[in-house]
Amino acid sequence: MSVTAPQGFRAAGVAAGLKSTGAADVALVVNVGPRDDAAAVFTTNRFSAAPVQWSRQVLATGRLRAVVLNSGGANACTGPEGFQDTHATAEHTAEQLGLGAIDVAVASTGLIGVRLPMDRLLPGVTDAAKALSAEGGPDAARAIMTTDSVPKTTVVERDGWSVGGMAKGAGMLAPSLATMLVVLTTDAAVDPAVLQEALKAATAVSFERVDSDGCLSTNDTVVAMANGASGVGPGAEEVAEALTAAATDLAMQLLADAEGSTKDIAITVRNAATVEDALTAGRACARNNLLKTALFGNDPNWGRVLAAIGTTDAAFEPDRVDVTINGVTVCRGGAIGDPREGVDLTGRAITIDVDLGAGTEQATIWTNDLSLAYVHENSAYST
Amino acid sequence: MSVTAPQGFRAAGVAAGLKSTGAADVALVVNVGPRDDAAAVFTTNRFSAAPVQWSRQVLATGRLRAVVLNSGGANACTGPEGFQDTHATAEHTAEQLGLGAIDVAVASTGLIGVRLPMDRLLPGVTDAAKALSAEGGPDAARAIMTTDSVPKTTVVERDGWSVGGMAKGAGMLAPSLATMLVVLTTDAAVDPAVLQEALKAATAVSFERVDSDGCLSTNDTVVAMANGASGVGPGAEEVAEALTAAATDLAMQLLADAEGSTKDIAITVRNAATVEDALTAGRACARNNLLKTALFGNDPNWGRVLAAIGTTDAAFEPDRVDVTINGVTVCRGGAIGDPREGVDLTGRAITIDVDLGAGTEQATIWTNDLSLAYVHENSAYST
Repeated sequence: MSVTAPQGFRAAGVAAGLKSTGAADVALVVNVGPRDDAAAVFTTNRFSAAPVQWSRQVLATGRLRAVVLNSGGANACTGPEGFQDTHATAEHTAEQLGLGAIDVAVASTGLIGVRLPMDRLLPGVTDAAKALSAEGGPDAARAIMTTDSVPKTTVVERDGWSVGGMAKGAGMLAPSLATMLVVLTTDAAVDPAVLQEALKAATAVSFERVDSDGCLSTNDTVVAMANGASGVGPGAEEVAEALTAAATDLAMQLLADAEGSTKDIAITVRNAATVEDALTAGRACARNNLLKTALFGNDPNWGRVLAAIGTTDAAFEPDRVDVTINGVTVCRGGAIGDPREGVDLTGRAITIDVDLGAGTEQATIWTNDLSLAYVHENSAYST
Repeated sequence: MSVTAPQGFRAAGVAAGLKSTGAADVALVVNVGPRDDAAAVFTTNRFSAAPVQWSRQVLATGRLRAVVLNSGGANACTGPEGFQDTHATAEHTAEQLGLGAIDVAVASTGLIGVRLPMDRLLPGVTDAAKALSAEGGPDAARAIMTTDSVPKTTVVERDGWSVGGMAKGAGMLAPSLATMLVVLTTDAAVDPAVLQEALKAATAVSFERVDSDGCLSTNDTVVAMANGASGVGPGAEEVAEALTAAATDLAMQLLADAEGSTKDIAITVRNAATVEDALTAGRACARNNLLKTALFGNDPNWGRVLAAIGTTDAAFEPDRVDVTINGVTVCRGGAIGDPREGVDLTGRAITIDVDLGAGTEQATIWTNDLSLAYVHENSAYST
């Protein structure tokens, strides 16, 4: 049921002709109240897209009634004209819904550096507004897909309230944030400051720890809306826990559907001096093309794990580092461990455990392999 | 003539059976004097290989008589036993040459995490010592090749003296340093402190600005030896200039032969506030897999250039950045510029000019595309 699983939300997804395939490309998610509390996290890329710039202003109020999303064009690096296009989209959406533009967030995804065909987008918004329904969540999730092969949705049920969510994202997946558009909804009653803290905590351990290809998008947007329709007002910790469950579920779906990937790789760095050190070492592995190609080739090349973490400033002594791949400790004390022939990498799931022997903290980064299909897909994307 | 072009150097390259192909895999370069001044730059990877650890100690003296190099095994992450192997190699080489082990640097390249077959390597060193000649430079250059398709050599002639050089390197090419073994020789008379400064200056603008695949090796070594055999004692600036010319020539050869590459890409960042900013922005592009796959696909996807530099802390205003690809300014003021259809990317050479509009400094980073062949070659390397 996606974003319409919680009470008091309506959604729709329609085809406006932005995609040459004729697939659905405009989504609308509307909060019918009673409350309109909201929070958001955006890309840290300094070339933020026009819809990100607009939605930042909208979300600064802590209130939101609707999100309009399109695939088929990112509206990034399109100058003042691109910002006007986003503004016009919010205005038009607001008119259809009897709201003000300041109540409407906008999110876009697709190719950078191309203007949106507004003559198709605005009629699409009109159609989406007419199609809004309490069962529209799955349609909305399909309309935001780009190179995604499947829609990503989630529902987290709690005692008398729930969280629903949808996500798109298949390339440009990197920390702060994985590239993606995400809408989370809940019928719990949550103050906007509490919702913002809960959303930050949830993204920090989910989307921000997925590093599929090291590339940070211009359009990343995670929006959360809470309307209190359930009549339940859970505590801050409960809200954070439920949002984290929903965000983690969606993040794992993004990982499993990353462009061209053949492996889902969980890199856990243990016994680090700090969580930051564990994340730094894990990300260095996730971004090492030689390691990622080796794993694509089913090669437990632990030397490339060490070469990757050897470039970081994480606290460790090289002769105290162990590396375990799919249960086999192939490197002990920074040197040769058990035979690499014992490692079975034929499945999709790979776990790499790095023991730094430098403390008691740990963290996991999720990534994918670097495959022939990744290169093929991304070398042919915009042409 | 490679490293034997300057007077007073002997070299050899022989097949010791380290490579399964039977190709040459042990090289020896000997300085017959009269002087034995030397300098070196090594990898900054914290998992430095045993030969790097050994050679660091040797070069601390500022003196060197010989370098023994092997392909077919990196002797990295091999523990105390690996260090003993390196030490034994230096001892054995010294015996053959009537030197002390402290006069002999060792360099190795190949797979990480595997012990060297000393029963083959040491007889190979014996053979190489017997084969030493003043014409042996090209043989030595061939013996250090791994996935290189061609040997890399250079000769820089100056007034009465010269610099010779050889290099290997085809993968793991990243700053500080490009992955590689390099030996530079000169018959100029140069004090070791001057030689060290000149070598650092030369590597900083050559090997350290080649960032083929963002991966930093455990074995990078650049050794320079000066014997004064020409009787000429050039000034420090002249030495730095000649070493820079030799190093740049070799660096461009590494770039042209990088594993699986189909493009040589020069990313010049202009009008930066500082050279460091220019390098940071250039490296962000060189390491962006989505940009590198787009260029492999002949797609002038300037949005991915902006997305890459947007992740850096270089000083710039997003709406003042221009991007020019092969002469066409496809992005102006952070937005849409001239039509991307005008960009011809069918050749091997690509120039990307990024104008940050934030100052007067500039720097160039050289990289390659991310191709199907890169993935294929690196997914099949160790198995």
